[in-house]
Amino acid sequence: MSNYSIILGNLGNTRDRFLSSGYKDELPKETLIRQASEINGVTGVELVGTWDVTSENVEQVGEMLDKHGLKCVSIIPDHFAQKRWGRGTLSAKDEDIRKQALDYTFECVEMARTLGCKIINLWPGQDGYDYPLQSNFVRERRWLLENITKVAKATPDIRFSLEYKPKEPRNFSFMARASDTLLLAKETGLDNVGVTIDTGHAFVAGENVAEAVVILQEYGKKLFHMHFNDNYGSWDDDMIVGSVHFPWYVELFFWLKETGYEGWLSMDQYPYREDGQGALRESVEFLQMIESRLTPTVMEEIRELVTKGDAVASQRWLRHTFFK
Amino acid sequence: MSNYSIILGNLGNTRDRFLSSGYKDELPKETLIRQASEINGVTGVELVGTWDVTSENVEQVGEMLDKHGLKCVSIIPDHFAQKRWGRGTLSAKDEDIRKQALDYTFECVEMARTLGCKIINLWPGQDGYDYPLQSNFVRERRWLLENITKVAKATPDIRFSLEYKPKEPRNFSFMARASDTLLLAKETGLDNVGVTIDTGHAFVAGENVAEAVVILQEYGKKLFHMHFNDNYGSWDDDMIVGSVHFPWYVELFFWLKETGYEGWLSMDQYPYREDGQGALRESVEFLQMIESRLTPTVMEEIRELVTKGDAVASQRWLRHTFFK
Amino acid sequence: MSNYSIILGNLGNTRDRFLSSGYKDELPKETLIRQASEINGVTGVELVGTWDVTSENVEQVGEMLDKHGLKCVSIIPDHFAQKRWGRGTLSAKDEDIRKQALDYTFECVEMARTLGCKIINLWPGQDGYDYPLQSNFVRERRWLLENITKVAKATPDIRFSLEYKPKEPRNFSFMARASDTLLLAKETGLDNVGVTIDTGHAFVAGENVAEAVVILQEYGKKLFHMHFNDNYGSWDDDMIVGSVHFPWYVELFFWLKETGYEGWLSMDQYPYREDGQGALRESVEFLQMIESRLTPTVMEEIRELVTKGDAVASQRWLRHTFFK
Amino acid sequence: MSNYSIILGNLGNTRDRFLSSGYKDELPKETLIRQASEINGVTGVELVGTWDVTSENVEQVGEMLDKHGLKCVSIIPDHFAQKRWGRGTLSAKDEDIRKQALDYTFECVEMARTLGCKIINLWPGQDGYDYPLQSNFVRERRWLLENITKVAKATPDIRFSLEYKPKEPRNFSFMARASDTLLLAKETGLDNVGVTIDTGHAFVAGENVAEAVVILQEYGKKLFHMHFNDNYGSWDDDMIVGSVHFPWYVELFFWLKETGYEGWLSMDQYPYREDGQGALRESVEFLQMIESRLTPTVMEEIRELVTKGDAVASQRWLRHTFFK
Repeated sequence: MSNYSIILGNLGNTRDRFLSSGYKDELPKETLIRQASEINGVTGVELVGTWDVTSENVEQVGEMLDKHGLKCVSIIPDHFAQKRWGRGTLSAKDEDIRKQALDYTFECVEMARTLGCKIINLWPGQDGYDYPLQSNFVRERRWLLENITKVAKATPDIRFSLEYKPKEPRNFSFMARASDTLLLAKETGLDNVGVTIDTGHAFVAGENVAEAVVILQEYGKKLFHMHFNDNYGSWDDDMIVGSVHFPWYVELFFWLKETGYEGWLSMDQYPYREDGQGALRESVEFLQMIESRLTPTVMEEIRELVTKGDAVASQRWLRHTFFK
Repeated sequence: MSNYSIILGNLGNTRDRFLSSGYKDELPKETLIRQASEINGVTGVELVGTWDVTSENVEQVGEMLDKHGLKCVSIIPDHFAQKRWGRGTLSAKDEDIRKQALDYTFECVEMARTLGCKIINLWPGQDGYDYPLQSNFVRERRWLLENITKVAKATPDIRFSLEYKPKEPRNFSFMARASDTLLLAKETGLDNVGVTIDTGHAFVAGENVAEAVVILQEYGKKLFHMHFNDNYGSWDDDMIVGSVHFPWYVELFFWLKETGYEGWLSMDQYPYREDGQGALRESVEFLQMIESRLTPTVMEEIRELVTKGDAVASQRWLRHTFFK
Repeated sequence: MSNYSIILGNLGNTRDRFLSSGYKDELPKETLIRQASEINGVTGVELVGTWDVTSENVEQVGEMLDKHGLKCVSIIPDHFAQKRWGRGTLSAKDEDIRKQALDYTFECVEMARTLGCKIINLWPGQDGYDYPLQSNFVRERRWLLENITKVAKATPDIRFSLEYKPKEPRNFSFMARASDTLLLAKETGLDNVGVTIDTGHAFVAGENVAEAVVILQEYGKKLFHMHFNDNYGSWDDDMIVGSVHFPWYVELFFWLKETGYEGWLSMDQYPYREDGQGALRESVEFLQMIESRLTPTVMEEIRELVTKGDAVASQRWLRHTFFK
Repeated sequence: MSNYSIILGNLGNTRDRFLSSGYKDELPKETLIRQASEINGVTGVELVGTWDVTSENVEQVGEMLDKHGLKCVSIIPDHFAQKRWGRGTLSAKDEDIRKQALDYTFECVEMARTLGCKIINLWPGQDGYDYPLQSNFVRERRWLLENITKVAKATPDIRFSLEYKPKEPRNFSFMARASDTLLLAKETGLDNVGVTIDTGHAFVAGENVAEAVVILQEYGKKLFHMHFNDNYGSWDDDMIVGSVHFPWYVELFFWLKETGYEGWLSMDQYPYREDGQGALRESVEFLQMIESRLTPTVMEEIRELVTKGDAVASQRWLRHTFFK
């Protein structure tokens, strides 16, 4: 079985623009960590800056993780949840904000080192634009590249995994799709810069997520990290894996194995009104159900199916292999 | 098991705007009918006007169907595949075209009677518009209503089932969504006018297809007919059932049974590059796989799930009930 | 010129699920009201329950409105911004919540009466569902109907305008599209129940908003209220009017006039990072620019265009009429 | 003014999957060429293989173009309109088909040389897949790369411009988005391989087309060619420019000039039911209306707007600059 993890905050309170105080209650951090450790198969967590971890509490958080037998899989710097970041971080028009964002990213590197964590999952969600004639694409995209290059070059012991998403919270993100982000990663010229695929972000981007895996892996093994969830296709609904789509996850799993991905499979959901632990557990079990089918024999069967390309045969095979 | 049928033309040649001569060869009509009869569980076919059936060949087609033990489930008048219909049929701006379309619809009624067929499945695909400031909505929508009322009122022995679709071949169709079309059906004041749901059209409309069933059934048992296929959500890809989505078909089947739908389950696909018979057979078997699970016990379990509304429990139940 | 209004909260702080404390500062209510009054052409405001108005402060709010020469155009009951409403209000599975929601709606009626306000704009955003097998559509949709009927029947002096939206905050709303909501309004059998079109919600629903106007007006003058904004088509981005689309607003304005709509034109935006007053003013001026062109002569020209249906002529006319 | 051109076939018959014989009549080739020459500002045409030009008729076509004073802007090899290409061309699973497709592409090179045409616009529309588990992405994407590299390397006098499109006629195309296709172009290592942006394809891909221009230009001046049309965002409706969106074309034009694009602006529409010449002329005039506003002063104003990033100011400026 692969290494499964979750994003810690998925277990906590959930908010949206209409109900900003949240659909749930706030729980103590250690409760969240304990709940994560109780999900069978989960051995790591991702921590979001500010929300889950800061320079001040990083030691304490590390102790809690140790106590509950969890690794810190990645730190996701908070580049999105503070008012100062509202118009961008590493690519902000305001030079001082760019500097603050860079400094803060270095601060996250130190947190990661403290926790023995090997990945900084960079999701600069506020870096983008909303309206026509609002962005100097040339300049702002260059700033983004330069700042990522700066921090990654100075930090060869950490892998920087760039997470793309077409929109939200901006109407257009600078890191919007797999290939855009791969281009940026390659442009840094650094081996420790790669890409995170979030399955839901890929669906919204209109990508076939398995093909996105192949593109990233073919251009230099640049798939560094995976986030899992499901949605209805037009928005990042952050639902339980398998609740909408099914065959895509089979194809995705096949190509992850086929292209030698050995990283974490991390759940990234937003269980607004659901029991968080239950929602995450169900996703993990759904994926494990698929993974458990992918024996060497079955992998060989899929190789034959994709080589032959007979859609009817593939559908029939899926039905016979997975359904009762 | 329910009554399963297919649209005959799904077995024939397939074309698109780039390859208008088609991806396949033309097959003799009797070959198509024989192929339909060979699909286990299929006992009826739908016939498209012009393509499959005309006033001239209707007797002969009837004999072929008899020979192969198939019923004619519906006739789908050709309101879309002739140059004269390019700017609309029953709602066309040109009065003469409207008259021709109405006459032709009556002609289809006679074909239906000849074949002992009880449903006219009306899909006026060319009735709509493409650009802003191109349609007099008030007038054209009224013409559509009037003409449907005329033919349905004069033909109480046939059920007219209005098939909606948001777009294609027009950018906007007048019968675009379940509720729009239900309003039109109710406005006729006739019991023999109802609605066809095509699952793929509902997905493109952003509807939850199971909820569309409930809306139609709650407002007077107005669901007359069902077309099945799958797609990626933004276009009528007309794929094999279950190739993209899975849980939606379970929910759909539950509500079809729960609301007392007793009509046909008809496959409506466009297997551009696939073996047509294989593609249709796979859809039928996928649906039968679901139907075979919906025992009275399982129906009761679903009733409890939808009453309780715990998404985690529903997902877990789906996994345990359907997957190996 | 038509009567223009805004939703008061558009001038205040803006939040989303990532930055729940908000992109802006909180401003005193009177500042918001004063800002509204400063926008040329704006003579009314809509007030959101809890956020803008409560039973406790309603008199005081009324005085502020009087002082600044503004009418209260509608009250939008808070059916979405409290934890107790997280799983629905008037259609909630929990009977006690349904009762609370109904009581609260009656409370909003009293606020409206106090303010001399004639419209309750009902947007039950939490009434819907997120996952397959999560909703008992039959029962829950009936509860929604019954509760709306109860309050509207008891309150003949107020018009209840039902605002539809396909999704957000639920993945599927019960009042999702114009026709669904019209069906519900008609089913109440009450003259004081109609529908609100929010242009952005209509875009996301895949509707042509002008056609939605015609449908509502043709079935008994059921268009009660209008909300304006713009978006990119797949999500309720709540942007400045005209920032993405242009011709749709011309067609919309034509049909509003043509079908005799005499209600308010109200701005409903979410200027997350923009100056709120500026964003609203720009929308009003954009709409006034269109309205000022729609002289009787121009109305007649459009009548001819939509009757003829020549898309090239319509586009040419739009260019010559509106662009320099 | 820029150099404007059209795709010749836009003037001819139009078909779709429902009306495969077409919405219009077939016109003689010279009539189409004459009609193209009659559109003010149009000085070139693009020719589609098979439909417009073959090895047999290329000399004759060249004479017609000369006679009517038109240049051949590009040849678009027919990689989509023959039954043999139905499952792919340069990346087909069938080795013999791949060879035929490569040979045919070389044949198009010779046609281009005969016509003094400098661009091969490669749109391998059939190269992709429809279903899960139907494509060996690694292998097929490599074949596509290898074959493009072969023909481009052997033909340094011609620029190969790769046109991307997310879907249609396949549910997923291998050349789907700007960045995917740029990666492929860069991977050839050849200066004469670049990318074509079709505005409608970019809209469907969820791209901001102006940002796509910047990405292509920033990574080595890789924007080789431009196709123009408009659509509703979810499908390649191939409409008249400006019929849906307006501000996007202003932003696009700004960045085309700003990044030094000096290629053709070519119309690529599908006027199914419109007068073809009229539809193309209207697009050209709409774009020329925008271009004529972009004086050095206005360019400087836009530079300030995108640097400042105030959406309200940008919207206000757009209204004051372009609308009466």
